[in-house]
Amino acid sequence: SEPWAIHFSKERKMLIVANIRGREAFLYSVYGSIESYDGYERFEFQHSYSKVHPIPEEYSPGGIFMSFEFYNVEERNRVKCLTGQYGVPMSTQWTSSGHYYPIQIAQFGLSHYSKHLAGPKPKVQVLEDGESGDTSEWLLPDRRSQLAVKTDVDFTDNSIIEFDTSENLKNPGITISMDEKKLSTLSLDIKFISNGSLTVLLRTGDGNLFRIHYVLGDTLIYLQKRDLYYGLGSKARGKWLHITRMVMVDFQKGLALSMSKSKVAKFKRNARIAAICLRGHGLVDNVTLSSAAHLEHFFDAANYLVNQQDDQGGWPIMVQRKLVPAVLELDAGWYSAMGQGQSISLLVRAYIVSKDQKYLDAAERALDVFEIKSGDGGVLTKFAGVYDWYEEYPTTPSSYVLNGFIYSLLGLYDLKEVASGKGAAHATRLFDVGMKTLKNMLLMFDSGSGTFYDLRHLTLGGAPNRARWDYHTVHINQLNLLSLIDNDPLFTTTAKRWTDYMKGKLSPHN
Amino acid sequence: SEPWAIHFSKERKMLIVANIRGREAFLYSVYGSIESYDGYERFEFQHSYSKVHPIPEEYSPGGIFMSFEFYNVEERNRVKCLTGQYGVPMSTQWTSSGHYYPIQIAQFGLSHYSKHLAGPKPKVQVLEDGESGDTSEWLLPDRRSQLAVKTDVDFTDNSIIEFDTSENLKNPGITISMDEKKLSTLSLDIKFISNGSLTVLLRTGDGNLFRIHYVLGDTLIYLQKRDLYYGLGSKARGKWLHITRMVMVDFQKGLALSMSKSKVAKFKRNARIAAICLRGHGLVDNVTLSSAAHLEHFFDAANYLVNQQDDQGGWPIMVQRKLVPAVLELDAGWYSAMGQGQSISLLVRAYIVSKDQKYLDAAERALDVFEIKSGDGGVLTKFAGVYDWYEEYPTTPSSYVLNGFIYSLLGLYDLKEVASGKGAAHATRLFDVGMKTLKNMLLMFDSGSGTFYDLRHLTLGGAPNRARWDYHTVHINQLNLLSLIDNDPLFTTTAKRWTDYMKGKLSPHN
Ligand SMILES: [Ca+2]
Ligand SMILES: [Ca+2]
Repeated sequence: SEPWAIHFSKERKMLIVANIRGREAFLYSVYGSIESYDGYERFEFQHSYSKVHPIPEEYSPGGIFMSFEFYNVEERNRVKCLTGQYGVPMSTQWTSSGHYYPIQIAQFGLSHYSKHLAGPKPKVQVLEDGESGDTSEWLLPDRRSQLAVKTDVDFTDNSIIEFDTSENLKNPGITISMDEKKLSTLSLDIKFISNGSLTVLLRTGDGNLFRIHYVLGDTLIYLQKRDLYYGLGSKARGKWLHITRMVMVDFQKGLALSMSKSKVAKFKRNARIAAICLRGHGLVDNVTLSSAAHLEHFFDAANYLVNQQDDQGGWPIMVQRKLVPAVLELDAGWYSAMGQGQSISLLVRAYIVSKDQKYLDAAERALDVFEIKSGDGGVLTKFAGVYDWYEEYPTTPSSYVLNGFIYSLLGLYDLKEVASGKGAAHATRLFDVGMKTLKNMLLMFDSGSGTFYDLRHLTLGGAPNRARWDYHTVHINQLNLLSLIDNDPLFTTTAKRWTDYMKGKLSPHN
Repeated sequence: SEPWAIHFSKERKMLIVANIRGREAFLYSVYGSIESYDGYERFEFQHSYSKVHPIPEEYSPGGIFMSFEFYNVEERNRVKCLTGQYGVPMSTQWTSSGHYYPIQIAQFGLSHYSKHLAGPKPKVQVLEDGESGDTSEWLLPDRRSQLAVKTDVDFTDNSIIEFDTSENLKNPGITISMDEKKLSTLSLDIKFISNGSLTVLLRTGDGNLFRIHYVLGDTLIYLQKRDLYYGLGSKARGKWLHITRMVMVDFQKGLALSMSKSKVAKFKRNARIAAICLRGHGLVDNVTLSSAAHLEHFFDAANYLVNQQDDQGGWPIMVQRKLVPAVLELDAGWYSAMGQGQSISLLVRAYIVSKDQKYLDAAERALDVFEIKSGDGGVLTKFAGVYDWYEEYPTTPSSYVLNGFIYSLLGLYDLKEVASGKGAAHATRLFDVGMKTLKNMLLMFDSGSGTFYDLRHLTLGGAPNRARWDYHTVHINQLNLLSLIDNDPLFTTTAKRWTDYMKGKLSPHN
């Protein structure tokens, strides 16, 4: 075989693989930086992990969303944790203090919805549902503590468990023990009558115990040695809560507060669930461990969005966004067409699964933000005063981020297909206008060797912002999806060419 | 010094120069093809010869046009010859039978105008102006032939020469001899009363004689062994002609009809002018050899354009143009905004030099074509229905060729600066609208690593047409020129970035 040489250009972040004797040369962009340690300088890099997924056979508003079944939103570094109050991600993107980022929440929900459809049926073990009448697996910490089967006053054919013990966190609690690795998603229905808490005990690889406490209160996430706290909200007492926790994700996010990513991974890999404990006075039912509970996470996201939607039908983003510092900035409270669109895609699916009208109503209300100009606090801009564009980042001047615009169109598509009457007409009009824009402007993002992330160069007069391969791949996956809902050959031919660009093929020159 | 490796990719026409031990890698596009001969396969390539010229200190409508002083239009392969009738190039671009291509004619004129301003003062030798009264240098071929000094009937203080000999081409003619290499541009005033001809004798490197005959008639160019014919036009008899010929160019174009480029170059290099001969009955004056006669070529072009302008103010291009075969085609008779603009730049300069109003009038009439939509046979299109664009190739759908548009704007600028009254107002309006378009659309041509030649991808929905470095260089030179007439930093910052692209620097990615 021929000898090969590998070179790279520091400035251009370009890796060149060249056949020494032959004529072949391949060029890849790599991402990385020069790192100095151990007395050596190294260029540490990674190629994009993103990939172009095979084109699915069809797309439907109740089906898998794009290739989101491959997303693990909650594991991303910029997710601080899934909050105890809502079970949705808290983002540290653009602010270390954290904010509820509707795009991330919608993607979290859509990824779990897609995993639900794509993945194997989860394994489920019910630890307690009160129906057997046997509570002997529960261990009481002292003689004053009590556990009893009761009839559910709301559903009299259902039995539940009443627990009563000290609310003090030093109290080990009323406990059910196990040694579980694979079924690490805990779900249960619980109602705290007094103050109380729920604790999951983990046995770590070093043989120590680690405690995750779900407490009444507004603590987001708090770590003290081997005690980790998640707040269920200060208003959680006195009402039934349905709680679904990926215990190992909660563990991971807690550890990440105090140790490196690689150490966290090692701890997480070797941890096992040892026990579940209840404190205070309350009712509990359906205590379950499962390999996954995708639909529950999905509905956590959908319910969050229904409950947090504002009067204008929007989900404002409460963090300042500096797309280009001092030039393209958004003050906290901005709407994103991508946030609106992804939320609509999620809510439409929640409606399809649940038939609950509230989800469809929320999706339809979300359309109103598309009618408000970005200069007036909305997301609508017009390219050349002619083509309606829905802005992921509604900056002034406009930024025209491609992937966010397409996500917004997919939301509109989902809704127009499922809604009826006025809602359908509204979504259809917004979708049709947006698709006309996309067809006219799509190739403005074609660089001849890749794609542009946005059109800031046209509005700011500076250098074009080339999309890194991660985003280029998103563009291709989006076009492949669009080709399933619109037979304009523009989408297939462009996706084909953009895929070729990743192999180093360029568009022709004159 | 570090060892270097050079690799190239056949498909991508990409040359990679990589430092074996270090980290540097440079990438160049090269142009070429795989050639097989002598039993070997070779990749024969050339880098672009074009270069980014230093930015001049100022631009004025009477000054050098861009960097056209470096152009040698008449020597290009696609110039069949300079015609005997008009002294302007006949183009074989897009048709081997040849056509008068106004863009080429204007560029020919502008290049000679620019050489006139930029170059050294030409060396001039007057062979005969009739004023000395001594005609002894002329040799008569026989006793019936006559040569005499006469008073010019039109300008009685001027003496001219009357010649009378057989018109037969076998007649060696009334001859003046020399051995001249450097002063190879012949100019003279001549009036054929009977049929007649003018012949230049060349002595070639092999010692043979070669004859270039300028004859009355419509022969464009015709070679028979060592006799080469140029027609002065069938209506040339009976009137004063001012003829200016680059003898070595005429020689080169004739030889090119029968031999390879390298052989032509060798013959041309070694040829010397041996004699000038007159036949038939006529009058002659101001027989001159010079090292260059740029202004005369310039006025040949300007006069051609004045005389050939049509009723709509245009210079129709009488050849079919297939920009994209079967998709973007133009039937013969199309106008080009670049042809109009470059002609205006030429005519404005002819007016400045001559103060002859006819040139300015022609330039102003040329504006009318800018008002006619490309679909109606003109050059005007509107991007997104909003931005007026003047089309080099007024195709349907539009093609938006950048360099042609900018050349048209430069023509409008030249005219608005020099004209007054209605003409100035008209040119100013067209220029202002066009510059607004350019500022809004310029960066649509920025690929992040080079430029696009046109925007066909946006109108046809296909791959972008990347500009080869030749055209990329033209774009940069044009922006540098625009920066002298408009202080918008867009032009300087973009020219800087586009120049960096040629060194392999890319625009940022996200
Ligand atoms: Ca039960
Ligand atoms: Ca004279």
